Amino acid sequence: MDDDKTFRIDAGWILTMSDQQPVLKDHSLVISDSMISDIIPTNEAPSFAPAKVFKLEQHLIMPGMINTHGHAAMTLLRGIANDLPLQEWLEKHIWPAEGANVNSEFVRFGTRLAIAEMLKSGTTTFSDMYFFPEDAASEVSEQGMRAQLCAPILDFPTAWGSGPDEYLGKSASLHQQYTEHPLINIALGPHAPYTVSDQALEEVCSLATESGMAVQMHIHETQQEVNDAMNATGKRPIQRLDDLGLFDLSSPVQAVHMTTLTPEEVNLMATKKVHVVHCPESNMKLASGFCSVQDLTDNGVNVALGTDGAASNNDLDMFGEMRTAALIAKGYSGDASAVPAREALKMATINGAKALGLEDKIGSIEIGKQADLIALDLKQINTAPNYDIEADIVYNANSRQVSHAWVAGKLLLDCGHLTRIDEEELIEQCTHWKDKILSSK
Amino acid sequence: MDDDKTFRIDAGWILTMSDQQPVLKDHSLVISDSMISDIIPTNEAPSFAPAKVFKLEQHLIMPGMINTHGHAAMTLLRGIANDLPLQEWLEKHIWPAEGANVNSEFVRFGTRLAIAEMLKSGTTTFSDMYFFPEDAASEVSEQGMRAQLCAPILDFPTAWGSGPDEYLGKSASLHQQYTEHPLINIALGPHAPYTVSDQALEEVCSLATESGMAVQMHIHETQQEVNDAMNATGKRPIQRLDDLGLFDLSSPVQAVHMTTLTPEEVNLMATKKVHVVHCPESNMKLASGFCSVQDLTDNGVNVALGTDGAASNNDLDMFGEMRTAALIAKGYSGDASAVPAREALKMATINGAKALGLEDKIGSIEIGKQADLIALDLKQINTAPNYDIEADIVYNANSRQVSHAWVAGKLLLDCGHLTRIDEEELIEQCTHWKDKILSSK
Repeated sequence: MDDDKTFRIDAGWILTMSDQQPVLKDHSLVISDSMISDIIPTNEAPSFAPAKVFKLEQHLIMPGMINTHGHAAMTLLRGIANDLPLQEWLEKHIWPAEGANVNSEFVRFGTRLAIAEMLKSGTTTFSDMYFFPEDAASEVSEQGMRAQLCAPILDFPTAWGSGPDEYLGKSASLHQQYTEHPLINIALGPHAPYTVSDQALEEVCSLATESGMAVQMHIHETQQEVNDAMNATGKRPIQRLDDLGLFDLSSPVQAVHMTTLTPEEVNLMATKKVHVVHCPESNMKLASGFCSVQDLTDNGVNVALGTDGAASNNDLDMFGEMRTAALIAKGYSGDASAVPAREALKMATINGAKALGLEDKIGSIEIGKQADLIALDLKQINTAPNYDIEADIVYNANSRQVSHAWVAGKLLLDCGHLTRIDEEELIEQCTHWKDKILSSK
Repeated sequence: MDDDKTFRIDAGWILTMSDQQPVLKDHSLVISDSMISDIIPTNEAPSFAPAKVFKLEQHLIMPGMINTHGHAAMTLLRGIANDLPLQEWLEKHIWPAEGANVNSEFVRFGTRLAIAEMLKSGTTTFSDMYFFPEDAASEVSEQGMRAQLCAPILDFPTAWGSGPDEYLGKSASLHQQYTEHPLINIALGPHAPYTVSDQALEEVCSLATESGMAVQMHIHETQQEVNDAMNATGKRPIQRLDDLGLFDLSSPVQAVHMTTLTPEEVNLMATKKVHVVHCPESNMKLASGFCSVQDLTDNGVNVALGTDGAASNNDLDMFGEMRTAALIAKGYSGDASAVPAREALKMATINGAKALGLEDKIGSIEIGKQADLIALDLKQINTAPNYDIEADIVYNANSRQVSHAWVAGKLLLDCGHLTRIDEEELIEQCTHWKDKILSSK
């Protein structure tokens, strides 16, 4: 038994997110070679203990959360422009700041900042859509996180390339490079219906079919997007994408935002098994609209959860995102039973795993799955008394209660401290980036 | 100079919440005898320093937050019933649990638990409406918090009394008892239009007029409440309350929830200078409805912020509440500039002070005001980089960044630790209460 690779966690509670036995009291997890190899009552834990045992009796262990949509490096633009609608925010603030600053170094550092924030708040897997995905991939690999990196495809040139052909070429070769990587998947990220032509989308579909790459796209982010498309083409964006075959791919298709859906479109998502990624805080902050999650769920659509980028959220905190998702579903529908605590937890864990095509590996605590885990210190005033653990996590836990995080069995957060990143240094370096970005304005 | 009573805080930033100079960089506060006696650039701080100087150069000092509506002792029922609409939640779960358990001891302990949670998350003043307000008052006094305690008035008997006459009598004598108390105000809390008769309301108005006591009432919490009143009497509740003279009192009138307002009702609130207390998370969790804050603010109504009780929120975290208020105002109105960060901060500080009639004492950092202050450690990943301090506090700060809290110059939270409450013991005692409450079901 390799001591480095085998360890045990004795947990006060385990929230498995599996349908059988959702909450286990006083159980232990045995981790061997990155995998969960056993789940047993702690009082039956074997007398031949591994060298390392984490004694976490006042903690809850749950699957690491999965942030299914974001733009990691945009942490560097967190709070640079606020209280503005999407188009003004993008055109007057974000795009100019990106135009002047985004390069390999920006992506590398911004992604590191995002990873630090995500690990500290309980996220162990994220999906990213940003320029220079090769640099994001290097950073993810170095930090030991798990990620889907969506190479951006747009009609126009950016610092990352001259247009769709170059973006697609780079995406294909990046995918090749990471095919065998245990923690990284490369996906295709056609930006949005209004920034990607029919021809480019057809090429995206061809490449996805050939390579098996997943596709993630912003769709129906605002009513304006739908209106503009109707005025220009007489077709709603979802109709156009369906006509182009996007929803017929055999690899996962992840539709992000989806704020303006007809009942027919909800049915289409269900029939075609499209995954929806709900980003409630970003949608509200930009006043984009509302994704009717309960309708989608009632119709059998898999709904995952994402924070979107820190520039429009302004954090990457999945605890806050779960709470917001659960609360606004009730507020908008007028039904207090909409998106109950357990559903919000599923959106943040197993549903995210399904959307990424990783449900055999992550998203729940089951023997044979990867040890992507977090520990949450429940002995805190804001989670006392403790009547209902699932409700406590969604409605009143604070992300700072996350004490430990493991990805594939590697300890990346230990008693609240990142094991691979020097936080103090990271924050100091932000000052340099802030000055640089502000001086470019 | 009395060393115990005079101290200095050297702050990286001060968010004053006064209209002049909202943010001061590298300034010091001098506190003498519970009051802010000077605000000066730190490099001009006098060479004769007081014995105690708090060196908080990486921190922001801001006014302690004011939670303008809640039911403190209901922390003991946090999470006992979730994902249910208001009436079912009240009638099947909360009222039976209260009926079997609420007494002096329950209120005393539950209020202590609430105070611990509020201090740790940056609240220094709260308004409470619950049975046994004399016990809540004793607890508040012992813990050194600042509070408005609203004695509940209802038509029916409870553990606290036999009906309106007894409630009003107890309220008047409690008010007498606390007239000179520096931190406690006793107010009248007629529960809601549907639980208080015309006669009892007239008596509330008379007592408020005689005594100068403020009045806080749940009004228009749901559409159902308005519909039921229309069916029974042909009058909307606000019309009935106005006819009874509630909005003509010279003491502050605080209308809580206010989810269903006509333009005429918005105007009435403005004309009569009624303070509105917005409780967005509770309103959403119970699917009660939405208070159109931006409309009220545009019409000159003072809007404060409250968490409501922990049984329907499920926390007492004003950072989360500010964020939710700012986000849903945008989401519901479709206007991304609705309730910008600064407005959310005002709702949580100076607007709360105005609603409680305490704007001369608290709610902003100005010379001559009470030293009700909190310190927030800004050197954290989720508040880096730091482009816009107000946006950072509202959209991405975490309440666990609160390191210090002072009420009237007394240090109640020191580097994250409560100075008067043993947290570990408090959490242990919750287990006893939980068992007792569950066994009564």
